[in-house]
Amino acid sequence: MICRCRTVAEPQSFAQDELSQDAFLGGQIKLLQPKSGYRAGVDPVLLAAAVNARSGDSVLELGCGAGQAFLCLAARVSGLSIVGVELQPAYAELARRNAAVNAVPAEVVAADLSNLPATLRQRRFSHVIANPPYYRAGAHSQAKDPGRRTALGEGTPLELWFDVAARRLTPKGYLHMIQRVERLPDMIAAAQGRLGSLEVLPLSPRVGRATELVILRARKGGRAEFRLHAPLVMHEGVAHHRDGEDYSPAVRAVLREGSALPWPDVGRN
Amino acid sequence: MICRCRTVAEPQSFAQDELSQDAFLGGQIKLLQPKSGYRAGVDPVLLAAAVNARSGDSVLELGCGAGQAFLCLAARVSGLSIVGVELQPAYAELARRNAAVNAVPAEVVAADLSNLPATLRQRRFSHVIANPPYYRAGAHSQAKDPGRRTALGEGTPLELWFDVAARRLTPKGYLHMIQRVERLPDMIAAAQGRLGSLEVLPLSPRVGRATELVILRARKGGRAEFRLHAPLVMHEGVAHHRDGEDYSPAVRAVLREGSALPWPDVGRN
Repeated sequence: MICRCRTVAEPQSFAQDELSQDAFLGGQIKLLQPKSGYRAGVDPVLLAAAVNARSGDSVLELGCGAGQAFLCLAARVSGLSIVGVELQPAYAELARRNAAVNAVPAEVVAADLSNLPATLRQRRFSHVIANPPYYRAGAHSQAKDPGRRTALGEGTPLELWFDVAARRLTPKGYLHMIQRVERLPDMIAAAQGRLGSLEVLPLSPRVGRATELVILRARKGGRAEFRLHAPLVMHEGVAHHRDGEDYSPAVRAVLREGSALPWPDVGRN
Repeated sequence: MICRCRTVAEPQSFAQDELSQDAFLGGQIKLLQPKSGYRAGVDPVLLAAAVNARSGDSVLELGCGAGQAFLCLAARVSGLSIVGVELQPAYAELARRNAAVNAVPAEVVAADLSNLPATLRQRRFSHVIANPPYYRAGAHSQAKDPGRRTALGEGTPLELWFDVAARRLTPKGYLHMIQRVERLPDMIAAAQGRLGSLEVLPLSPRVGRATELVILRARKGGRAEFRLHAPLVMHEGVAHHRDGEDYSPAVRAVLREGSALPWPDVGRN
């Protein structure tokens, strides 16, 4: 689900001249997205790269936006059965177009997480993935318009994302979520009683720097103890000294070649 | 508070031949401790090294055992007003002796956290420190004796430690706690509504390895967002290749010279 600052009245689709087509994973993925407003970034790519799905698995993406994360996952793992849910009809329509452009047979449903269609509520998935909005509680308190407040994410607490994920997962199914580290306490609280075997992979901008993002892996019915992995360092060096990108080798392989993110082996599950 | 596996009937003191005297911080601290049972380790030293106390501050240690942590803190920061609380009378008495041996004017109270003496409940401290038992829930379910279960820590949930800490802290006072990483979700849950500005310093055995211990810093009335710092790496190299210790320079300075642990600057609070 994306930061939807520009939508108060919901457009049903984007005009062609509102869109650009951008390449990801070294050209493996082409993504139509609005020229203004939310622009696809690195985070959904990292999320997709963390998912331990295998061919034949089913994947539900909550808040799929234009489809960037599930497209990246489909580029790496063939034979997935994919469903995306997106609140905004215009983005859901865009995700369908992007799936077609990339020949990914994904089903995209325009729906609110709190009110999924009955057909979806009868299905279970081996994986749920999500990149919820990065709002901070209270940070948007100046937004007086109720529609805008909803769009900024304040109306969709993280607890709802976990609740839907837990309900839609098969036993032993996995949730992967990427989020700002500030929300880690909320994520842990929301997982309580719903998902277990929590593992946190911190993403640090550079060696020795505090974590900014985390990827959470959790398992339905999991009973293993909480794990905090060594950080994945995003950029080489202790500061940005030269022009151009300075991604670490593992991150460059994810972003440029569509490789899996090296998830630490925990010797269990 | 220490692992009290050996105490069902509470001894009031240790016999001299039950004790050994060991040196810490390169000989700055001498610690009398029982030859069998719980033995002082590295963790209370790291805890003490993390505390940002200044001369003149007041410090309450919950579960002080033989006094190792507060003695290490007193060796680094002079002019502290220190109170230790310890459930077991024999350890409380030992902590008093250790304070005297090291010329540290600490007051040690033998009391249960759930029932502190009224005089203590009227006092506030600028710092609370704690190294609660490292039991795992359910791990000691074979202990049928109720006294033994209590002693293993199952009767003292982390929530009580946080509750006592929050009540005894002055506004803006700090809690520092060292604990197994598996308990981080419980620590975060227990801090909820009691303490804020949580910062987690992971302690990793070696570069790239998952965290085993964390030091939590939290502040009474703190409103800053949750922070996850880069791990403090305990040992050099990726594996133990040679005889003897291979502590990283920062950890060696803490353990051998009584230096402060280099807590990451967060540019706030």
